[in-house]
Amino acid sequence: MKKIINAPEAYTDDMLRGIYAAHPDMVKYVEDDLRCYCTAKKKQGKVAIITGGGTGHLPLFLGYVGENLLDGCGVGGVFQSPSSEQIYNVAKEVEAGAGVLFLYGNYTGDIMNFDMAAEMLDMDDIRTASIVGADDVLSNKDAQVRRGVAGIFFMYKCAGAMAARMGTLEEVLDAAKKAKENTRTVGFALTPCVIPEIGHSNFTLAEDEMAFGMGIHGEPGVWNGPVKTADDLAEESVGEILGDMPLNPGEEVCLLINGLGATSQEELYILSGSVHRLLEQKGIKVYRTFVGEYATSMEMAGASISICRMADQEMKQWIDMPVHTPFYTQV
Amino acid sequence: MKKIINAPEAYTDDMLRGIYAAHPDMVKYVEDDLRCYCTAKKKQGKVAIITGGGTGHLPLFLGYVGENLLDGCGVGGVFQSPSSEQIYNVAKEVEAGAGVLFLYGNYTGDIMNFDMAAEMLDMDDIRTASIVGADDVLSNKDAQVRRGVAGIFFMYKCAGAMAARMGTLEEVLDAAKKAKENTRTVGFALTPCVIPEIGHSNFTLAEDEMAFGMGIHGEPGVWNGPVKTADDLAEESVGEILGDMPLNPGEEVCLLINGLGATSQEELYILSGSVHRLLEQKGIKVYRTFVGEYATSMEMAGASISICRMADQEMKQWIDMPVHTPFYTQV
Repeated sequence: MKKIINAPEAYTDDMLRGIYAAHPDMVKYVEDDLRCYCTAKKKQGKVAIITGGGTGHLPLFLGYVGENLLDGCGVGGVFQSPSSEQIYNVAKEVEAGAGVLFLYGNYTGDIMNFDMAAEMLDMDDIRTASIVGADDVLSNKDAQVRRGVAGIFFMYKCAGAMAARMGTLEEVLDAAKKAKENTRTVGFALTPCVIPEIGHSNFTLAEDEMAFGMGIHGEPGVWNGPVKTADDLAEESVGEILGDMPLNPGEEVCLLINGLGATSQEELYILSGSVHRLLEQKGIKVYRTFVGEYATSMEMAGASISICRMADQEMKQWIDMPVHTPFYTQV
Repeated sequence: MKKIINAPEAYTDDMLRGIYAAHPDMVKYVEDDLRCYCTAKKKQGKVAIITGGGTGHLPLFLGYVGENLLDGCGVGGVFQSPSSEQIYNVAKEVEAGAGVLFLYGNYTGDIMNFDMAAEMLDMDDIRTASIVGADDVLSNKDAQVRRGVAGIFFMYKCAGAMAARMGTLEEVLDAAKKAKENTRTVGFALTPCVIPEIGHSNFTLAEDEMAFGMGIHGEPGVWNGPVKTADDLAEESVGEILGDMPLNPGEEVCLLINGLGATSQEELYILSGSVHRLLEQKGIKVYRTFVGEYATSMEMAGASISICRMADQEMKQWIDMPVHTPFYTQV
């Protein structure tokens, strides 16, 4: 294991100390717990959107806490859920009189802890609603049990925009739902990553081998085989996405080319070019392209392709709303 | 070599095609040459700032072309200089009546080609001035022959801000100079990278070994040895920087923690936290912290630490000026 760290067991908290020191005007923590991550710019009367999940996916999850996006994040250890108490404490801090939306990835531990936190808030008479991201097409044929990966970005964008416009809890939930229904992701890994406290990867890929459909915690993919070209990966990925969510010529989409951690920005743009050419051939218009690291797996090499169908004009306005966090700024 | 590409020889041009397809409203190319990279938002009467250099360092160099930053970039092949003709063609396109500043890294091939382009522009009666980034403390004891690395970001920011304020060519050059005089960088690598057309790295590091002071093209560092902790790396790096550019308690700096490509954002923030603690102990105040990938070496693992002394209030205003490019947005 080669990492720039102090000690494996200090990974998450040292990271958080670094973030708070770098961005003291934008984020803070409460209850003396570094893992209760909150916006420093609470806005009264706005629906509070709270996410959470394991460490190791920056900028996911906490990186989307900021203006016109999210209000708080429960931070777990590496690939671990935050506790229900942490989620509850974050919610108590950022709740601003209009209720709380829990918006996070479809993982068992997270669901359990967010649901418990919702019960605790209910006893305080704070309204909550919950929705999970589940965009990873190849993780399951059943859309209900799919894993949430990079496509949650579009749910954050849409829900965040509706909350910023002072929508009700139901409206903010509906915005997240609309993004969810119209978003699909396919990913692939070229190398594994290493959990600091374990010190070695729990699987290996040969020098010329990749894993197609692999999850961001190293969940097995649908095939392991020789590394394919960017054009072939684009074609297979987009094929899987359109097989699950058909698109007609003339429809507009947003495209997210996400790096899993170690893959260079040069490669991400090569891949993005491949996807653009393919969509153009199919007569599908790209409304906006996002390229970079949006949901990573520490130093895993690989990428994911997310397509979000622009179902109406309102969705485009949500996507276009300026946002500003320590990790992601859009004007 | 594991990369998401189509063919090694298409690396640079496929990357450029991907960038132009993703950001057609912001950048374009001229003379039917993908490598003549220009802003799509030329502003009449403004000093044009042009950079350039080899591919493989995204967002360096072309990623800083955009609002309130740079106006054009000559794009070379992987780790190769753009040609003088390419630089000339970019300059002819973006020059807007107030002269041209060439601002790039201190590498022999680049200097030769930028100087030739300056001569060609001189024959067209277009005024030019030139300055090179040379911030890499450990690359040479003689500051004149040091390599330019991530610290060029501060030169871009200061010169870009002065140009956006419609400063003269001399004023824009002076802003770049002020940033240069006050910026120092130290970097270190944990793994090498692979030039696509070569297919293997030109050196190796053992499983527990790192290279301190290594350049962004794999130039040898000052020592190879076991991987140190983030705290130790921060102390040694900051020690080298302050040895070359002494700072007094009470002085203010900007801090740039730059990832070389494969290093996770988690690790960069761990390292940033270490540097913050160290500077605090020394009584040095951090005015603003930048953490992320600013100058990479494809999939090299490692990081660099740049410190830019805030010499006066004006420099802070330059640093704070909002900028917007496809790769970097600051509000």
